[in-house]
Parts: sequence; C-alpha cells; structure tokens
Amino acid sequence: MSDKQTPSVCLIIIGNEILSGRTQDTNLAYIGRRLNELGLELREVRVVPDVEADIVKAVNECRTAYDYVFTTGGIGPTHDDITARCIAKAFGVPIERNPHAVALISQSYKPEDLNEARLSMADMPKGATLIENPVSMAPGFQYQNVFVLAGIPSVMQAMFESVKYKLTGGAPISSRTVSAFLGEGVIAQGLGELQERYPDLEIGSYPFFRSRRFGISLVVRGTDTDRLDQAAAELKDLIRSLGGKPVEDTAT
Amino acid sequence: MSDKQTPSVCLIIIGNEILSGRTQDTNLAYIGRRLNELGLELREVRVVPDVEADIVKAVNECRTAYDYVFTTGGIGPTHDDITARCIAKAFGVPIERNPHAVALISQSYKPEDLNEARLSMADMPKGATLIENPVSMAPGFQYQNVFVLAGIPSVMQAMFESVKYKLTGGAPISSRTVSAFLGEGVIAQGLGELQERYPDLEIGSYPFFRSRRFGISLVVRGTDTDRLDQAAAELKDLIRSLGGKPVEDTAT
Repeated sequence: MSDKQTPSVCLIIIGNEILSGRTQDTNLAYIGRRLNELGLELREVRVVPDVEADIVKAVNECRTAYDYVFTTGGIGPTHDDITARCIAKAFGVPIERNPHAVALISQSYKPEDLNEARLSMADMPKGATLIENPVSMAPGFQYQNVFVLAGIPSVMQAMFESVKYKLTGGAPISSRTVSAFLGEGVIAQGLGELQERYPDLEIGSYPFFRSRRFGISLVVRGTDTDRLDQAAAELKDLIRSLGGKPVEDTAT
Repeated sequence: MSDKQTPSVCLIIIGNEILSGRTQDTNLAYIGRRLNELGLELREVRVVPDVEADIVKAVNECRTAYDYVFTTGGIGPTHDDITARCIAKAFGVPIERNPHAVALISQSYKPEDLNEARLSMADMPKGATLIENPVSMAPGFQYQNVFVLAGIPSVMQAMFESVKYKLTGGAPISSRTVSAFLGEGVIAQGLGELQERYPDLEIGSYPFFRSRRFGISLVVRGTDTDRLDQAAAELKDLIRSLGGKPVEDTAT
C-alpha cells in the first residue's frame, strides 16, 4: 500500500510465553484486521520478553517511527507484569497510582480481597488516560500515541473496541482474494505484470497445500474498491488463460 | 533466563499477509519451542512487510544483536518474494543464481514447466549455503548467522529440522507448569517471593478464562531440572496454602 493517507501502526507483543512457544498469539491477526477496516495499517510487530531494557527500547524506537503503537500483555498484578513501569521509563515520566483506576479495581473486589498486588494494576505513567476494560475491570491506558492493552484475547479485544474511536484512520483497506490450483511459478510472470499495471494496489501470492495439491491464493488489497474489482477480474482472466479455474473467496 | 550460556535468536517474519491478519502465523511458536529444546532462546521476533527497506533494516539490526537470525517467508517465485535480494543487500554482497539450487529446482519440474520465475528461486547472496527442502525442493539458504526459511509451515519445519545441527545450543530449557483456579492477585505476593528465591529460574503467571472461571497457569523455566522440580513443589505448596488445588500439566 503506497497510500500516504493510511496512518501506520506498530504492535509490541510483550511476554516470554509467546517467545517460548507456550502461548499461540492471536492478538496480532485481530488487530491487523481491525486496523485495516478502520483505515490504518499494521506496519510492524515486535515480540519482546518480560525484560525492562528490551521493552523500553522497543517502545522508544516504535513510538517515534509510527503514528500509533499498541502493546499487549504484562499489565496484571504479578512480578512479571512490568509493562506500565516500562512505558513510564520510555517517556521519562514518573509512575503513579491512578485514582480513577483504583476506584475501578476497588469496585470489582470484595474489600477483604483487595490487596496491594491488585491495587498495583492502577500504577500508570503520570498523565495516562484509562482504557476501559468491560471484561475484568482492571483498565489499560493510553500515554500519547501508545495504547497499552491486556494480553488475554477477550480482554484485549474489548479494550481495542473501547479505544478505537481515538484512532484517526484513512479510507478502509479492502481486499479481494482469488484462489486456484495453479503453481506459483506458472502465474508468477503474469502476476508481476498485473502488479505493474496496478501500482496503487498491493498484490500478494500465497501458496497453500490442500487436498494433497499445491494451490495459490492471490490477494489484492487497496482502498479503491472499483480498482480492486477491476484487478480481481483481470486476475480471473489470467488464471483462466493459464488453464486454471479461479475461485473468489467471499471472506477475505 | 539469565543463563549466559544460552545463545540468543531473533526471528524475522516477512509478509504482508501476517500483518493484515489474513494469515495466522504459527511458525513463531514452533521455532520458539524447538529452540528451547535445543538449548537456545528466541529473544525477539519482528514481523515486517514485503518492503525492501524494512526487511534490510530488520536484518541488519538483528544479525548484529543476536547470535542467530531466522527469517520466514518471501522466498517463492512471485514479484512479492524479495527476501533473498534483501539479505544480499543487508550484507552488501551481490546476488547470483546458485548452480546447486538450479539443479535441485530443475529436477523437480518437467523441462517444459521450468521457467524463469521458478529458476529465480535459485537467486541467493553470493556465498550462501543451501538449506535442504525435502517437501517441495526449492531450497532455503544460510548466509553467515542468518537462516532463510520458507513461510509455509510444513516446508518451514522441514527446513528447520534439516538445518538445526548448525546451531550451537546450551543446556536445553525445560519447564514445569502448575495451574489452579485462583486469582492472579491472590497469589501475586507469594509468587514474587518465590521468584526472588529462584533468580536462576524464570517464573511466569498466565491467567486464563475456562469453564466460566478465571484461573492461572504458572510456568517455571530454566536449564536445571532439579531446581525446576524444587520450585514446582514449592509452587504447589503455595497454591494449597491459599486454598487452591494445584494441577501439574504434563505437556508444558
């Protein structure tokens, strides 16, 4: 996508459990899809361990390089939840116990269950604004262009949906997907020529192995739906000219 | 893990389809797990688009910061497969058609199906050594400490297994996982104290939502299995002392 009107986003996934392979991340795909619908583009993702220096470095490199940064993970009450203090350190601001967050957290526990660990989830960079958590109450937060979300997918998604109105997007990015049982090498030349005729669109080729046969899904992405339809029609003609049977996926 | 004997690895996942959320990556988890078994640690992951400048930058930053770098994706025959030329550019070496790769690719097609696009999969940085692809023949390659693998999981896995003997690992990283239906906030203090008593191990707390209840999986990781067993036993005692019922996962 060469559309300069599409704001760029970086996602920083924080957590040893992702890097060790113990937990399969699904937040990337959710955020990537939703950003496209909102007219923004996920441009880079970094996965970093629960190590202060690594998190601070990633946040500082990415918050200056991209319009928005999202982080997921590391905002619970245990010793390995260090995201909030890392964000404060990255911005060079003190961390403080946010009174509004304390109120939200206090409401969700019986008085005898409210302890220091749970209250520590209200520690945030001074000046942060809260991101609502309709699932389990303990809020995320925003500091400048950095949005700090939970790692649990259901909580992360609820937080994303409650904060999305703060993002200024361009035109939504749409796509058309056409698949066929053709070798990538068979269509490569014609596909490259098609990409040259549509420099405003992004054409990707993704091989798959299904029913014991290799096939390809060809994905055209862009903001102009008329151009997308034109390119998809040309793509189907190209596949037919090579002896293939094009199938347009409705869910792309 | 503070073990200095554990070599560090960075994975660079190349592909617009991952960033758009169209394709759910599973290569990260596979590589993370296998590296731990081989005594190496996946320390960072970056996901970058099919854009030359982005790929070159990521490769150059990561190949100097980590012992090994793996890349996945972008080594097919179509216009969006630009990984090989980006690796060459990152190292400042010319790209050339590798004769051994040409031979492998030629063997896997009938002469009339062998075209320029397919042969282009043999283009590699001058001096690269091949990584065998037992699934679909077109090889990956190694250049210095960078290992370039396919994106399709079955092909990536086969390439990883054929190249793993080139990695020098430390002691394998093992783990013990104990789960319980306890709130994270209930166990946070005791867990933090346990982590302080075991600075050589890494203790992570991962909340989950199952059978309509919140619970936690506590994961202890390290290279010394006796210490792991000790810490897991203490963890179970801690859970019991808080009124919980510890369950040790056999597959961690």
